[in-house]
Amino acid sequence: MGERRYIYFISDRTGITAEALGHSLMTQFDVEIEQTTIPFVDSVARAEEALRRIRAEAGGTRAIVFSTIVQPEVREVMRRDDGVVVFDFFDTFIGPLEEELKAISSHVIGRSHGRPHGSTYDVRVDAMNFALNHDDGVTTRSYTRADVVLVGVSRSGKTPVSLYFALQYGIYAANYPLTADELVEGRLPTGLARVRDKLQGMTIDPDRLHQIRTERRPKSRYAELRQCEYEVARAETLFRRERIPYMDITTMSIEEIASTLIHQRGLARRVY
Amino acid sequence: MGERRYIYFISDRTGITAEALGHSLMTQFDVEIEQTTIPFVDSVARAEEALRRIRAEAGGTRAIVFSTIVQPEVREVMRRDDGVVVFDFFDTFIGPLEEELKAISSHVIGRSHGRPHGSTYDVRVDAMNFALNHDDGVTTRSYTRADVVLVGVSRSGKTPVSLYFALQYGIYAANYPLTADELVEGRLPTGLARVRDKLQGMTIDPDRLHQIRTERRPKSRYAELRQCEYEVARAETLFRRERIPYMDITTMSIEEIASTLIHQRGLARRVY
Repeated sequence: MGERRYIYFISDRTGITAEALGHSLMTQFDVEIEQTTIPFVDSVARAEEALRRIRAEAGGTRAIVFSTIVQPEVREVMRRDDGVVVFDFFDTFIGPLEEELKAISSHVIGRSHGRPHGSTYDVRVDAMNFALNHDDGVTTRSYTRADVVLVGVSRSGKTPVSLYFALQYGIYAANYPLTADELVEGRLPTGLARVRDKLQGMTIDPDRLHQIRTERRPKSRYAELRQCEYEVARAETLFRRERIPYMDITTMSIEEIASTLIHQRGLARRVY
Repeated sequence: MGERRYIYFISDRTGITAEALGHSLMTQFDVEIEQTTIPFVDSVARAEEALRRIRAEAGGTRAIVFSTIVQPEVREVMRRDDGVVVFDFFDTFIGPLEEELKAISSHVIGRSHGRPHGSTYDVRVDAMNFALNHDDGVTTRSYTRADVVLVGVSRSGKTPVSLYFALQYGIYAANYPLTADELVEGRLPTGLARVRDKLQGMTIDPDRLHQIRTERRPKSRYAELRQCEYEVARAETLFRRERIPYMDITTMSIEEIASTLIHQRGLARRVY
C-alpha cells in the first residue's frame, strides 16, 4: 500500500449521490483513504473555500474529488487546481446525454426529493407516520392504505424496512408482528386475511434471531435459541400454508430487502 | 418535445446509486420519460433477461440505460446491443481511477451498507431503535449515547430527520418535543440542560406548521395558526436565550436537513 489518499465528495446539494458512487468506486481499491463530504458547494466562493480546505488537509498529496456539481463555473474552480484530481459524475455524462437526446440540458440545480410538483406535502413523512402508526399489529383497519404489509416474528427486520420504504421511496408499509398465540394457533389473524394480497412474510435464521434478541433482552426467554427456532418454524409453516410469499432476510441489508420487494411485488415508488 | 424515452437503472446490487445519479441527470432535460429500475443483475443470464425486457418495453425506441455494473462481462451484454445506449457510472471512472491510484481494481461486487467489517450487528438498526425509543422526551437519561438531540415544537421535522440519520448514516439522534408547559416557562428542561452541547434546535414557519398540523388534526386547537405562531415564537426565544443553535427547516428536504447538520456540527457517520 502506498500513501494515504484524501477523498472528497463535493456537491451543490447534499452530496449523497457523490458519496454513494465515489465510495463504491473506492471500495474497489486496496488503498488507505480518508473520506470527507462537503455539501452545498453552490457558488464560486464556496468552491474556493472548499478548495482551500482540501489543500490544507491533503498536505502535499493529490486529493481525489468526486463531484456532482451542476454549474460549470463552480466545477471549473476545482478543475483549475493541480493539487486536485476531479471526477465529475455530472459533467461526464451531460454531454453524451445531450447528444443522445438531441436536447440541451438546463444546468439547474435540481430538487428531486420529497415534495412532488405542486404539492406542499411530503409524501415520505406521511408514509413514515403511517409506518410508525402501524408497527404493532393493533390497528389493522387502515391496512387498505398500505402498499404492502410486512409479516413476521419480532425482530425479523420489519420496522427498519417499513421506515426505509417510507423515507427512500414514499411507499406505505405496515408491519404486523406475529404473536406467540397466533403462532401456536397457526391461523391468519382476521385483520391480515382481509388484505391477503398485500402480505409479505419475512423470515430469518434462528441463530441470527437469537443473537439479535440477546443484544436487546439478554437472558430472556424471548431471546432463547429454542424459542427463536420455534417461532421461526411456526411462522414459516403459516406462510406456506396460507400461501404468503416470504423471504429470508438473514444476510440482506435493509436496502437489499427493500429493492428486492419493490422488484418482486411491483411496488410503485412515489418519489425519486 | 419528441418521443417518450425509456430509461433503465440497472445494477448488480440494489440500483439506488444508479437511480439517484441517473434521475438527477434526466431532470436536466425537458423530455418525457418512463423510468424503471432493474436490480440484482449480477450474471450474464440476468443481463440477457434484462435486455429482453428492455427491448420488449421500449418498442422501436432506443432505451437509455444507466448502470453501475461492476463485472465487465455482465456489462458487455448491454453494450453489444444496438437498441440500447449504456451510460455506465462504474466503468467510466474505474480506468482513470486505476491510473490515478496506480493500482488495479478488484472488480468485486461491493457490500458497503449496514454491517461494519467484523461486526454481525447493524449499527443502523441500533440507531433506529435508539431514535424510536427517544422520540417523546420521556427518557432523557440515555441521551449520553446520542450524537445529537433534536429539539423543537411538535411537527417541526424531528422524527423523520432522526430516523433518516439512523438509516442513512448510523448516527444516533434523540428528539425532544418541547411541551406547552416548557414553552410557557421558557426554561430548558433538566434532561436537556445536562446534554447542552448536543442540542440542536429546529424551527419552522408558523404557516407551514399550521398546514402540517391541520392535515394531522383538522380543526384542533393544536393546529390553529395562532397556536403555531405562539409555540414557534416561544421556542425560538428559548433557543436564543439558551444559545442553542437552531435552523429553519421550512423549505428543506429531510436529506438537506441531515447533511447540513452533519456538516455544521461535524457529526461522524458510522456507515457508508
